[in-house]
Amino acid sequence: MWSNSLGKSFVITTFGESHGRVIGVTIDGCPAGLRLEESYIQADLDRRRPGLYETVSPRNEADKIHILSGVFRGFSTGAPITMIITNLDVDSSVYEAIKETPRPGHADYTAWVKYGGFNDYRGGGRFSGRITASIVMAGAIAKRLLKETLGIEILAHTVQIGAMKVDREPSLEEIRKNVYSNPVRCADPSKAKEMEAALRYVMERGDSLGGIVECISINVPAGLGEPIFDALDSDIAKAIFSIPGVKGIEFGSGFRCAIMRGSEHNDPFIIKDGRVLTTTNNAGGIMGGISNGMPIVFRVAFKPTPSIAMEQRTVNLRTGEGINLRFIGRHDPSIVPRAVPVVEASTALVLADHALRSGLIPRVIKDERRSI
Amino acid sequence: MWSNSLGKSFVITTFGESHGRVIGVTIDGCPAGLRLEESYIQADLDRRRPGLYETVSPRNEADKIHILSGVFRGFSTGAPITMIITNLDVDSSVYEAIKETPRPGHADYTAWVKYGGFNDYRGGGRFSGRITASIVMAGAIAKRLLKETLGIEILAHTVQIGAMKVDREPSLEEIRKNVYSNPVRCADPSKAKEMEAALRYVMERGDSLGGIVECISINVPAGLGEPIFDALDSDIAKAIFSIPGVKGIEFGSGFRCAIMRGSEHNDPFIIKDGRVLTTTNNAGGIMGGISNGMPIVFRVAFKPTPSIAMEQRTVNLRTGEGINLRFIGRHDPSIVPRAVPVVEASTALVLADHALRSGLIPRVIKDERRSI
Amino acid sequence: MWSNSLGKSFVITTFGESHGRVIGVTIDGCPAGLRLEESYIQADLDRRRPGLYETVSPRNEADKIHILSGVFRGFSTGAPITMIITNLDVDSSVYEAIKETPRPGHADYTAWVKYGGFNDYRGGGRFSGRITASIVMAGAIAKRLLKETLGIEILAHTVQIGAMKVDREPSLEEIRKNVYSNPVRCADPSKAKEMEAALRYVMERGDSLGGIVECISINVPAGLGEPIFDALDSDIAKAIFSIPGVKGIEFGSGFRCAIMRGSEHNDPFIIKDGRVLTTTNNAGGIMGGISNGMPIVFRVAFKPTPSIAMEQRTVNLRTGEGINLRFIGRHDPSIVPRAVPVVEASTALVLADHALRSGLIPRVIKDERRSI
Amino acid sequence: MWSNSLGKSFVITTFGESHGRVIGVTIDGCPAGLRLEESYIQADLDRRRPGLYETVSPRNEADKIHILSGVFRGFSTGAPITMIITNLDVDSSVYEAIKETPRPGHADYTAWVKYGGFNDYRGGGRFSGRITASIVMAGAIAKRLLKETLGIEILAHTVQIGAMKVDREPSLEEIRKNVYSNPVRCADPSKAKEMEAALRYVMERGDSLGGIVECISINVPAGLGEPIFDALDSDIAKAIFSIPGVKGIEFGSGFRCAIMRGSEHNDPFIIKDGRVLTTTNNAGGIMGGISNGMPIVFRVAFKPTPSIAMEQRTVNLRTGEGINLRFIGRHDPSIVPRAVPVVEASTALVLADHALRSGLIPRVIKDERRSI
Repeated sequence: MWSNSLGKSFVITTFGESHGRVIGVTIDGCPAGLRLEESYIQADLDRRRPGLYETVSPRNEADKIHILSGVFRGFSTGAPITMIITNLDVDSSVYEAIKETPRPGHADYTAWVKYGGFNDYRGGGRFSGRITASIVMAGAIAKRLLKETLGIEILAHTVQIGAMKVDREPSLEEIRKNVYSNPVRCADPSKAKEMEAALRYVMERGDSLGGIVECISINVPAGLGEPIFDALDSDIAKAIFSIPGVKGIEFGSGFRCAIMRGSEHNDPFIIKDGRVLTTTNNAGGIMGGISNGMPIVFRVAFKPTPSIAMEQRTVNLRTGEGINLRFIGRHDPSIVPRAVPVVEASTALVLADHALRSGLIPRVIKDERRSI
Repeated sequence: MWSNSLGKSFVITTFGESHGRVIGVTIDGCPAGLRLEESYIQADLDRRRPGLYETVSPRNEADKIHILSGVFRGFSTGAPITMIITNLDVDSSVYEAIKETPRPGHADYTAWVKYGGFNDYRGGGRFSGRITASIVMAGAIAKRLLKETLGIEILAHTVQIGAMKVDREPSLEEIRKNVYSNPVRCADPSKAKEMEAALRYVMERGDSLGGIVECISINVPAGLGEPIFDALDSDIAKAIFSIPGVKGIEFGSGFRCAIMRGSEHNDPFIIKDGRVLTTTNNAGGIMGGISNGMPIVFRVAFKPTPSIAMEQRTVNLRTGEGINLRFIGRHDPSIVPRAVPVVEASTALVLADHALRSGLIPRVIKDERRSI
Repeated sequence: MWSNSLGKSFVITTFGESHGRVIGVTIDGCPAGLRLEESYIQADLDRRRPGLYETVSPRNEADKIHILSGVFRGFSTGAPITMIITNLDVDSSVYEAIKETPRPGHADYTAWVKYGGFNDYRGGGRFSGRITASIVMAGAIAKRLLKETLGIEILAHTVQIGAMKVDREPSLEEIRKNVYSNPVRCADPSKAKEMEAALRYVMERGDSLGGIVECISINVPAGLGEPIFDALDSDIAKAIFSIPGVKGIEFGSGFRCAIMRGSEHNDPFIIKDGRVLTTTNNAGGIMGGISNGMPIVFRVAFKPTPSIAMEQRTVNLRTGEGINLRFIGRHDPSIVPRAVPVVEASTALVLADHALRSGLIPRVIKDERRSI
Repeated sequence: MWSNSLGKSFVITTFGESHGRVIGVTIDGCPAGLRLEESYIQADLDRRRPGLYETVSPRNEADKIHILSGVFRGFSTGAPITMIITNLDVDSSVYEAIKETPRPGHADYTAWVKYGGFNDYRGGGRFSGRITASIVMAGAIAKRLLKETLGIEILAHTVQIGAMKVDREPSLEEIRKNVYSNPVRCADPSKAKEMEAALRYVMERGDSLGGIVECISINVPAGLGEPIFDALDSDIAKAIFSIPGVKGIEFGSGFRCAIMRGSEHNDPFIIKDGRVLTTTNNAGGIMGGISNGMPIVFRVAFKPTPSIAMEQRTVNLRTGEGINLRFIGRHDPSIVPRAVPVVEASTALVLADHALRSGLIPRVIKDERRSI
């Protein structure tokens, strides 16, 4: 049933499979009058490409975006915006091995159960991480909408890969400057080196590592989010868990709150330059499901890439016999670096949806660069 | 905008305020033919009441459920089921103090911004933890539906309060037997005593503690959950973050996955008695957003109760002046114990919704105890 | 599955049965700051009561509205607004006769099929015309919202009952003045007399009549309605067909358009006092699914009341035998008069939903009569 | 806001503009295991092409369908199915004339208001009748799903163009055999000739005609449709009004019901071969919003094609001056013939949605022609 769509006002619908013809997305609800060029979205898509691991990556995904509808003479029209990237021809023959022999850590088995074996299993099909390109394309538009109308900026960065952790909160400036200048998307260049080394180590052993991504959204006005069920944190959590490989999310103080006392955890209010602020941000910018004007901060745990080169134990679903599977194919040793722009994009989609729902963004953007 | 509803097939709509006339919920989509009595739902509601802290709790909430519609001669009819509890008359005068002076850690400020000061602020109004009674009432019906049609059982229990942690995974039998026989809802009786002591300690100091609840769902058939966005973990996370006080959620290995390798994390498949199982459950029972037949396991972090007796720093929203607020009123020193049945209920709502969406539960329940 | 709700921004969820405890409705999405009193909604509910036929009607429905939530100190809070009317105790014993013997023209049979016999059949249960009280209660709030923010007025009136037709378009003033001063809700007093006589005639013979209601909405700004599927006419049609007894709807020229030429049918544009108007209104105020600023005009056909005193042919669903059913009970000889305020209410619900979706109504109403 | 989607279980999302790159549609919720080939959908698309008027039509729309996702080795996978047709290069220069000068009878003005002038006005853009190709593509899949799982057949045919009316109800056999063998899609060959002559007559005069299409769905099981708001007639009406040019819809007795008595209108029940039937079908196959097992019958009024060659009165939206517009371009003299397959397709979309919602169609189609 209907589940490839997200949002109530800025609604995306995704489609496509890893080895099918295209990966695509339709946005329904983008205001008219937003400047949009393929090159802008392409730039975000390119950030999702593997960095240093490009040579390692099994596919050189020269993902080229095409806007099929909803943009006319450089501006959104208010009609649905559909974007696709065309999948290049790939040799899918290696995946015949997993047709009835699910890879541990993948959705092969659950997809087989749910779709009675009719699912496209090539490259993980609809369950491939490649599907996140849809999110990145739509997220790029959401980010521009948020930036141009409300000045919102969303910054994600890697804070942990395996045992390597960032040990201090980087400044926004460091995040802006450093994240895309190293292949692990870390704001601290020296930690980035350690993470990279850790990744190379496990990769050589045919293994992989998990990690944690942090996301900070600034300039979000107070008042976004709808209680009870479409709370801002509820909707962000939902969107984030739709990214393959996510095992946890926490806002502000997060799991650490368990050992805190109320007197420590409650964020005191002050007024500064006429704006209500809190002196701490244990809330992570959201109270009662509604943004309070402070930065929205959350962290996401990603499991290690399930695609590894080592032999693993599985079963043949038809015969029922146990099998040692060694699946050929080379993959990123961690999901984390490529997930960084995806986390940003997912966050942007939710914020854009809520900004429209709250009436903070008009249905027609007045852009002074265009005279109608 | 429309946000007090949850679900796509088993849809609940909640209403009511802490100090208003009622707290209520409507279920749209419950199959016809399910046996339902007020006494059954009352029993679940009673589990949400404070235990040992009953004497401490500011309100003796003798919540009595009334089914207003959708049940005829002891069975659901297929029409919407509306249930309410009537709020007893409470003295709300103490809340006049916070009308323009938001309590730290509460939604007073964000509600004020969003609703322009028109929100009912008495007792937290629509943002009160009392609102979770709606979830518990609806969840009771979802639990019965899941139990009677699929044999699903959902078991939540406290695993941490403050620094006191359960140090081993309790058996299902221990959870079933012990959780509601101690006031902290912990499956380990000796740990329960420690948690209780910790709570008494902070309570005496006018303070409060956070904690962690774990939830285990067994007998969930493989195949529940809809990729991409209505993934089972996405929808559970969304529902859980709608419970006031939640700061984080993690499934299976959770945040611990960051330091794991793929070779450890991937759950190997085996076949036992004709059923496909995994020998570990780092996935927490969900792969690619779809249940895999293993227990669905997740943990939820709750912040310390924001209502504390200590003086706190805040501001007057109209005058802009800083204020030291000492809010009178006695509250539970931890959200956690009362949240345990709420976590169960929220989980049941999502599983019932997905079981109906997947077609695993029919539109009319055949109950041999009733001849039509 | 979820189907007792209507709307995307101003969302109503209805519940209750004809002979159950209550009839009710929840509105989710009403802006905060709207003045609301029970007496105002009561007045609309009273318009739905039988007029001259009061003595005739089987039940003297002294429907008294109760607002259960969402209103605080005379203003909407932004939280869900739930309203109920309590059903008085009625003798339902007569309905045992139809438990397995469906009345022709009623939903008894289809309800029996769909809900496997678990439906509450007393008084038609969930399928009774009495259910429209939910629509009228919610519609009253929608009407006030539209009136106070945009000046929109919605006027429905009877244009045909049986063979008796209004033969000229009444003025808005006549509609406002006359409709609720005669029991058939007709704007032309002399036609009203004829309609009344026709109804008395069939009523004496144990029979009933159909008819047509026209609805005119004025001051609707251009720009309401969302192409393609949530076109304003699409959404109005959907809402109108949810009123029991509707067999047809037509906008503007309606079915008459079949014999028209494009050169007659196209409404020429002019500009008057700076506003774009059309000199004719064959469009009925909607073009491409979007309001064009002209009055929105449509007509609705209602079938004759299916409850008649005459003997009718039906079957026993369990035994399969044919039966001559003469169902005791006295009913209105036409649905039409009581449907007039329901048509208004349904229209208001759709217009309020679209006005909010379009951003034409703010999330918080500034009412100068209230200082926050 | 989100409005280019239809359905709750079988959900379509449409995109594309008349002179943009593509016209497309995504289906979310089609069960896995349905046989699908581009050639089958192409055949339905071809039925939407102008027949005899091919030479007359301004564009020779050689619409070639491409399935972009959701189909693997000839069967649906359960993933979203996206289909597009590519628009051939068209000279759009003629439309510059209407950029600020709306054509009477078209959505030019309302689109301009709603989207602040950013809408793609070429060929009517998103409001073109060409958009119905999306509905036809998706409807083709819905029709196959309904046919293969439930044996449902949907038959639309022209019953009136201008003053030319079919004067007797054709048999299903006549509809099946004759409709696509004449250019007006009429089941009565001699009436078809008259309609054709009428169309040629107005076409020569630069004018156009309206008409009426009837749609009959057979083998629909009793029990489809959800009260109150997602009644089957409500949802069909909504879908039908989304087709450009519709001014009215009526089910069964339709507007004629106004002059009927209850004793005539109520359809008596009988049992025949163990099935409950009615001896008349004034209900049009739907009672209380739920199918009753009889044929679902409705009629749709289409206005005359608004594109005519005659001079018309309009205004320049920027300057405010009145203008006599003679818009160059040749169009079909009636919407009706091309609307016939669109009405069928829209009906199929609603029935498929409801069949899935009711649980009458499984999530995985077992097709004996495929062994998994």
